[in-house]
Amino acid sequence: MLKPCKKKYDLGGSPLEDVGAIASHCLEKIDSEAVARFQAKLETKNYSVFAAKDLLSRPFLPAMLLHKPDEFERRWQELLGKLNPTTSRIDMGEEKVNLILYTAITAVCVCFDLWKPRSRKTPGTFLEVLLGSVLGRLLPRHKRTKFIPIPEQSESVSTDIVFTNSTATKGIVFPAKITTRERIVQPFAHQRILESVFGKGRYQSILLCVSETQRDKHSAVNEICVPGTIRLFQSYLACLSGIYYLDPPNRYLKPDVTSVIPVGSLGLFLTSALPALSRL
Amino acid sequence: MLKPCKKKYDLGGSPLEDVGAIASHCLEKIDSEAVARFQAKLETKNYSVFAAKDLLSRPFLPAMLLHKPDEFERRWQELLGKLNPTTSRIDMGEEKVNLILYTAITAVCVCFDLWKPRSRKTPGTFLEVLLGSVLGRLLPRHKRTKFIPIPEQSESVSTDIVFTNSTATKGIVFPAKITTRERIVQPFAHQRILESVFGKGRYQSILLCVSETQRDKHSAVNEICVPGTIRLFQSYLACLSGIYYLDPPNRYLKPDVTSVIPVGSLGLFLTSALPALSRL
Repeated sequence: MLKPCKKKYDLGGSPLEDVGAIASHCLEKIDSEAVARFQAKLETKNYSVFAAKDLLSRPFLPAMLLHKPDEFERRWQELLGKLNPTTSRIDMGEEKVNLILYTAITAVCVCFDLWKPRSRKTPGTFLEVLLGSVLGRLLPRHKRTKFIPIPEQSESVSTDIVFTNSTATKGIVFPAKITTRERIVQPFAHQRILESVFGKGRYQSILLCVSETQRDKHSAVNEICVPGTIRLFQSYLACLSGIYYLDPPNRYLKPDVTSVIPVGSLGLFLTSALPALSRL
Repeated sequence: MLKPCKKKYDLGGSPLEDVGAIASHCLEKIDSEAVARFQAKLETKNYSVFAAKDLLSRPFLPAMLLHKPDEFERRWQELLGKLNPTTSRIDMGEEKVNLILYTAITAVCVCFDLWKPRSRKTPGTFLEVLLGSVLGRLLPRHKRTKFIPIPEQSESVSTDIVFTNSTATKGIVFPAKITTRERIVQPFAHQRILESVFGKGRYQSILLCVSETQRDKHSAVNEICVPGTIRLFQSYLACLSGIYYLDPPNRYLKPDVTSVIPVGSLGLFLTSALPALSRL
């Protein structure tokens, strides 16, 4: 199911009907074949893990998951109707957007954890298609690509999602990652290269993520946060214009981080921050 | 055996006797318990793989491995005798240095692949101790550390091996990696941060590696090279002063790479390039 959807996306489409159908299919499979295994508390948040046979899923927030496929489908269609290409925002509440998008990506992640654990890269591809398609509908006058060619270099800067304005004078780079881990350096390094090549102001980078959680060996939930690294990179490598999560780590919402870089929920970005950027 | 050796190293020592004993012990275990499984040709080079029970080792160059422990021990002692702290070079032929160091690190890597596959990070630690200790003996007036504190930041730039001269005005950073893979961006990003913080010229970075080979699913040997990425990073992220491998990929020895960055064997570096740096 993912392949034809990815193909439409790669041809420049924003196949959100297909994206919703894939997520819904995954929710159905989870609903009928997986069992909730355990719960783990991380500060203020309660995580769950699904199990099937001897495999466990990654942790997720059950409070943010629309468990019933028909409920998800209804909300998904509602979201598609609220994508406003004129204002470049989703005309919906921040939390509602988070809930629907979190359900879509989590359904696919859990499904691959339980039944296709070897296809490790596919959930990341789905996230890229999901976010690139939503942004594509919100930025109809921008051109979407996957990389930025560098003059006189064989290598492009290969970012996940790039939108260039109609006059090709400004670009927004959206690295999209399920979690960042040791790859947190990449968006900063890419932004730095873009500034070296094109000067400051031509491109800006906004990192879009799902969460920083992972299940540890003992079936508890960990959150890997590197606030010092982010401050260091933001000060001395390059400035990102923001980091937005579906499940933002509490640690990154503290003032020592938010004073150097905007951090918030992806729903906040899609309902409030994107409209200003879209006018660039 | 590695723990006490690492402890001596972390306390500032250069425990090369221990390093040699560990490598020798690994060679003995391989010699008595592993079997050569298959050979694979990669361009001009012939690689082998060892097997034990149902596990396979990473590929290695049998022509560069001193298979017999007593032969290795003899050569190891010879190398230790040729470490010249006055000139900061090893008074030995480049190829001989490569052979001895390649044997030491390969013995440990193969041993961990076959009998401790879950300790994935240990061979990298051994490489750091091996190279940091050799460099420590060659740079007796420099101070060795593991990271560089950044003024007013909680986070240090955490490189593998750093040597600072006696007046603390110049530093050499040696990231040490068995293979680089997607981590190739790290040494460039770190050098960039150091230039942003301390200005150009205070620190230089020299990347030290074993090889870029890996075994693929079908038991052939792959070499993952990203010459375009290296050219891009070297031009627009930061300049490394060189990349040295025990088994340099042929691809990186071609003029399109060597015209932007010095690339060579680690033996070459330790017999010819280091003396000039040591006078900084």
